[in-house]
Amino acid sequence: MAITVVGSVAYDTIETPAGRRERCLGGAATYFSLSASFFCDVRVIAVVGEDFGPDQESVFKARNIDTRGLERAPGKSFFWEGSYLENLNEAKTHNTELNVFASFEPKIPAAYSDSDFLFLANIDPVLQKRVRDAMPGVKLVAGDTMNFWIKDHRAALEKVLQGLDILLINDGEARMIAGNNNLVQAARAVMGLGPRFLVVKHGEYGATLFHGSKSNSGEHTFRAPALPLEQVVDPTGAGDSFAGGFFGYLASQKEITPGAFRRAMFYGSVMGSFACERFGTERLQQLTRADIDARFQQFRDLTHLD
Amino acid sequence: MAITVVGSVAYDTIETPAGRRERCLGGAATYFSLSASFFCDVRVIAVVGEDFGPDQESVFKARNIDTRGLERAPGKSFFWEGSYLENLNEAKTHNTELNVFASFEPKIPAAYSDSDFLFLANIDPVLQKRVRDAMPGVKLVAGDTMNFWIKDHRAALEKVLQGLDILLINDGEARMIAGNNNLVQAARAVMGLGPRFLVVKHGEYGATLFHGSKSNSGEHTFRAPALPLEQVVDPTGAGDSFAGGFFGYLASQKEITPGAFRRAMFYGSVMGSFACERFGTERLQQLTRADIDARFQQFRDLTHLD
Repeated sequence: MAITVVGSVAYDTIETPAGRRERCLGGAATYFSLSASFFCDVRVIAVVGEDFGPDQESVFKARNIDTRGLERAPGKSFFWEGSYLENLNEAKTHNTELNVFASFEPKIPAAYSDSDFLFLANIDPVLQKRVRDAMPGVKLVAGDTMNFWIKDHRAALEKVLQGLDILLINDGEARMIAGNNNLVQAARAVMGLGPRFLVVKHGEYGATLFHGSKSNSGEHTFRAPALPLEQVVDPTGAGDSFAGGFFGYLASQKEITPGAFRRAMFYGSVMGSFACERFGTERLQQLTRADIDARFQQFRDLTHLD
Repeated sequence: MAITVVGSVAYDTIETPAGRRERCLGGAATYFSLSASFFCDVRVIAVVGEDFGPDQESVFKARNIDTRGLERAPGKSFFWEGSYLENLNEAKTHNTELNVFASFEPKIPAAYSDSDFLFLANIDPVLQKRVRDAMPGVKLVAGDTMNFWIKDHRAALEKVLQGLDILLINDGEARMIAGNNNLVQAARAVMGLGPRFLVVKHGEYGATLFHGSKSNSGEHTFRAPALPLEQVVDPTGAGDSFAGGFFGYLASQKEITPGAFRRAMFYGSVMGSFACERFGTERLQQLTRADIDARFQQFRDLTHLD
């Protein structure tokens, strides 16, 4: 099965207590694609500038990611600069340059049209909606968003939520969408806006999957831990890597059962934990499926009674 | 098997978004005793004032808790007033009156001397050390502490830590003791001060058990979730209730295996979740063992792949 993902491919300058990297390859669609590529076919839709060359494209190619939807535009690629010096759980943004992304009009290659899975990474909800509508045949649609769209683009965001099967966001975003600090109540409110499944990410404490209206009773709730890490080198892209592992695993399954959702939560946490171990996409580029399965087992040991 | 616990028995005035209660029965030793009493015999050592009457004592008696170590002193019982209006994860203290606790000299009844388990609830480490030294025959000693002792009574606290098998604290306390924000590194530093096992509580995100020096690799780490609760009525005593479920379950086991520690983490989370559902000790007083086992199963469903 194949996932089509639309989102940003970017350059990031990142500073963390472990050091600094200038203009490393980043962007939500990049992290998502690399992560999901260990589980299923991935097709990416994004725009890049003239500064995106063969070295960057080879990162995708090495993982067999379909880049026919990677549009080249005159100008520079999307650029983000941020740091995590005081708090590894929250980036402080120093600079954002949209560049070619400012006029991004997603174009879906004909070869992508038979994708069964669609992931709408964190971009303008107007664009998310456009891509979703252009791919009516997909079986399962997941997506992400962020505080900026929640706060100032509510109406457009709500239209996207109506078309989502699964929304993946963090605690703060869930509480902000719902206007409610209680996680269970907030989850119910968010699901009331459309998504049947909600994954709320808790950073170093893992993530919770909510499904259905009885989420408070626990019957429709599943919690995956995060791995306690000796050193978090760079948390950039951990959430997108989680989404890639989670959705990539679902796309690899013949049948999407409740058990598949549980394992998908674990694979999400597994991929998020790897992403933090090196700067940018470095760790994801080096991974093997054996590394992933060994860590999956480690997550099982970390949480299971016997 | 019996646990002797030394700590506070107090009156609490509590305000939360769910309401306000004046002078309800509280204190770390109270929550711990009630919680542990569902698993093993419990013997309490504390001091109370003339305001502690038969109604309060009957709360202990109803759970068959041995109160021969409950000393009556002239004056008023320890009193605490706090609120959780802005943040349910952290109490704001408005008033603390030590009263009879100011001159507390723990006296250990002869009938307690054959206890195999000792819990040193959060009190002055000088007193914790005195009780620990007076009970050299115990097989397993666990304890708690708080920011006040960590910050201003470090030397006395370090003497207590040297005599502990298990320390139960929260994230902030672990980071404060270690002077290190990374949880894995902080856990290793804390265990370097004495305790072979460290339980770090993450509030609504559960708790992590660390054991041994290889905690970073996950082999000696176990994570129990907290239950996503529809409404947290009153988080007061949740940590002490966790400790009671955790240590009470260990004390109920013929052999303390790694599996017993894992189940103990779940029972700790189970008892902490109940404590939050009503004000003060109300929920713990009404519980049955069937309620506890049903929720244990719910925690398993919440975390296990199959």
